[in-house]
Amino acid sequence: MSKVPGFYFSGISSGVKKSGKKDLGLIYSEVPCKISAVFTKNLVKAAPVILGQERIKNGTCQAIIINSGNANACTGKKGYKDSVSTSKALSKELKIDENLVIPSSTGIIGLPLKMDKIEKALPELIKSLDEENIEDTAHAMLTTDKFIKTASKKIKIGNKTGTISAVGKGAGMISPNMATMLAFIVTDIAIAKGALKKAFKTSIENSFNKIIVDGDTSTNDSAFIMSNGLLENREINEKSSNYKKFVEAVTEVCSEIAELIVKDGEGATKVVKVEVKGAKTENDAAKIARTIGNSQLSKTAFYGEDANWGRIVGAAGRAGVKFNPDKLELFFDGIKVYSKGVQHQSESKYAHVFEKPKFTVTIKLKEGKAESYIITSDLTHEYVSINADYRS
Amino acid sequence: MSKVPGFYFSGISSGVKKSGKKDLGLIYSEVPCKISAVFTKNLVKAAPVILGQERIKNGTCQAIIINSGNANACTGKKGYKDSVSTSKALSKELKIDENLVIPSSTGIIGLPLKMDKIEKALPELIKSLDEENIEDTAHAMLTTDKFIKTASKKIKIGNKTGTISAVGKGAGMISPNMATMLAFIVTDIAIAKGALKKAFKTSIENSFNKIIVDGDTSTNDSAFIMSNGLLENREINEKSSNYKKFVEAVTEVCSEIAELIVKDGEGATKVVKVEVKGAKTENDAAKIARTIGNSQLSKTAFYGEDANWGRIVGAAGRAGVKFNPDKLELFFDGIKVYSKGVQHQSESKYAHVFEKPKFTVTIKLKEGKAESYIITSDLTHEYVSINADYRS
Repeated sequence: MSKVPGFYFSGISSGVKKSGKKDLGLIYSEVPCKISAVFTKNLVKAAPVILGQERIKNGTCQAIIINSGNANACTGKKGYKDSVSTSKALSKELKIDENLVIPSSTGIIGLPLKMDKIEKALPELIKSLDEENIEDTAHAMLTTDKFIKTASKKIKIGNKTGTISAVGKGAGMISPNMATMLAFIVTDIAIAKGALKKAFKTSIENSFNKIIVDGDTSTNDSAFIMSNGLLENREINEKSSNYKKFVEAVTEVCSEIAELIVKDGEGATKVVKVEVKGAKTENDAAKIARTIGNSQLSKTAFYGEDANWGRIVGAAGRAGVKFNPDKLELFFDGIKVYSKGVQHQSESKYAHVFEKPKFTVTIKLKEGKAESYIITSDLTHEYVSINADYRS
Repeated sequence: MSKVPGFYFSGISSGVKKSGKKDLGLIYSEVPCKISAVFTKNLVKAAPVILGQERIKNGTCQAIIINSGNANACTGKKGYKDSVSTSKALSKELKIDENLVIPSSTGIIGLPLKMDKIEKALPELIKSLDEENIEDTAHAMLTTDKFIKTASKKIKIGNKTGTISAVGKGAGMISPNMATMLAFIVTDIAIAKGALKKAFKTSIENSFNKIIVDGDTSTNDSAFIMSNGLLENREINEKSSNYKKFVEAVTEVCSEIAELIVKDGEGATKVVKVEVKGAKTENDAAKIARTIGNSQLSKTAFYGEDANWGRIVGAAGRAGVKFNPDKLELFFDGIKVYSKGVQHQSESKYAHVFEKPKFTVTIKLKEGKAESYIITSDLTHEYVSINADYRS
């Protein structure tokens, strides 16, 4: 992980998690940052999401405090007050304006935050801040995740080298339109507010909004990008020659985090890219890709290493998109499996693809030129174990 | 199971299933019947569905032949020819018009039918026909089902007593808009063609279209109703006083079969009714009920007997329906769990509901007066086992 000038990280155990694992993280910039964010589209939003949506409006932020173990969702007015109190207490300790702090929570829904533990832990949280500590922050935001998720990229902006680093979490409740996922991207590259917002939206669309684990969307999903401008480059705007480069780099780190989330998908043993080509519209292509990516029968076939193309063709047929099924072609890692309404060649030619930990399922509709894709995981015994026993 | 005058059933082993279990069934009426049918909405339709849709047009039928073990889906032109050949061979043996025979298949997708075995078995299939043999037919249509599904009801039509009996199959690939399910309803009650069609549509809407196991829709789903009129009652039409009674009775036997399908849902240990009340429109209510009924996180919570209302409220919030989440109320078997954005009372008051094999989750939106519901199963380790290993 590359450190990013001016950004400091920490992650400690406050006691919110009974296990004693890290559960409180902090990202702090030595100067106020430009910030942009994308939040869950779920109507039921956690308290920190509601507060975050308000605080994000002025486009400036200096610190994000993250707790895991408790989502502070469905906690009513008290939950909202708790989010405000957390950020107020932190702002006092950091001696910055309260409005420059954004809280973020992930974990169990419906229980009150243990405010005493969080507030008591703040001095240690701040004391632990270090440019090198991003992995501590990564640990502090985990719930059912099995490993931490970080990504980093350096790009040349003029004659200077800027850094974009990201830390995220997520394993279940993963669906396009975000998921039980949090992602925090920090950069020293200076960029105008409008350009930062647009760049981030594009990056999210092509990373976090392309993954599925179980099709559930959480109350807490949030992704943030903070730019502190300490690279002192000429500020990027939408017309700059460096704008595209910036978008690509942010998309790249977000995609890396997104793919790690699928890989860590609760109980997942496979990462499968489902691409749909030759659709009439991108929306048609996305609908089919998502239907396959969400299909329990496709996902159990991935798990069982059973190259059962019938389930995939069947899922495509029920996606609610009009196409001629006789023109549909199906490929596993580029090997043609199905065309003209029947199996194209013997299963021995393609069965091995499903034995790989990572493979691609491609559908060609031959109805138009639009395409889309989704990255999904398999549905396993362990997924059921994790989610049937989550709270016990 | 009540026998129905004039209807004969059989079910034998033809050798299509390697296990040697029953895999070929026949339903035969001694006189031609009025028939109505509903087929899968999947764009990818099995050969017998395509042929059935053609044959159904004239509204008359005398025999339905059902094979299990092979869906004859995604089998192209050869598959269609095989369906035609099967019905032709049977019609010869039965000495009836070929167009009075409808074939129906369920099982693995993409493999050619073993025509030699089926044709060779026809004489025995016909020889076994008996008014009492409906359970043999029920056995012959099973795939991953653990038990047979039959239901029956007698109703008074004037001074006569008519019978409605049903036999069905289904366990996986179950979603509203039918599923990998077949259902055959037979009655001796005379009813006009239009009235039969309308009655059946209403009954399906309130039975098979209200169940979910895994949200997948198959290429083969079909439901048929045959009336041979041998009760010799005054023919029912839509204006008859007996029309409503007929619809209710058909709905009842279909609901019984539908609920048995959920109970037999692959690996299912729970049958859960999800009802949504106080919605602006029935469509809104249905959308929320289906989103919860399809939610992997809700379904694993049902399995884990974990009364995790946060997952249910979360699923409601992502259903794509606009409502005020602060007005939402949630009940488990009538016990209030959640209201005004927070947990309503201690978990000890309602946790026991999830320990029952059958319970109801009710959401009240307080946005309007429309309502809908869905019956769903839980998502279990066994579901994954069954579907990861189906073909091996």
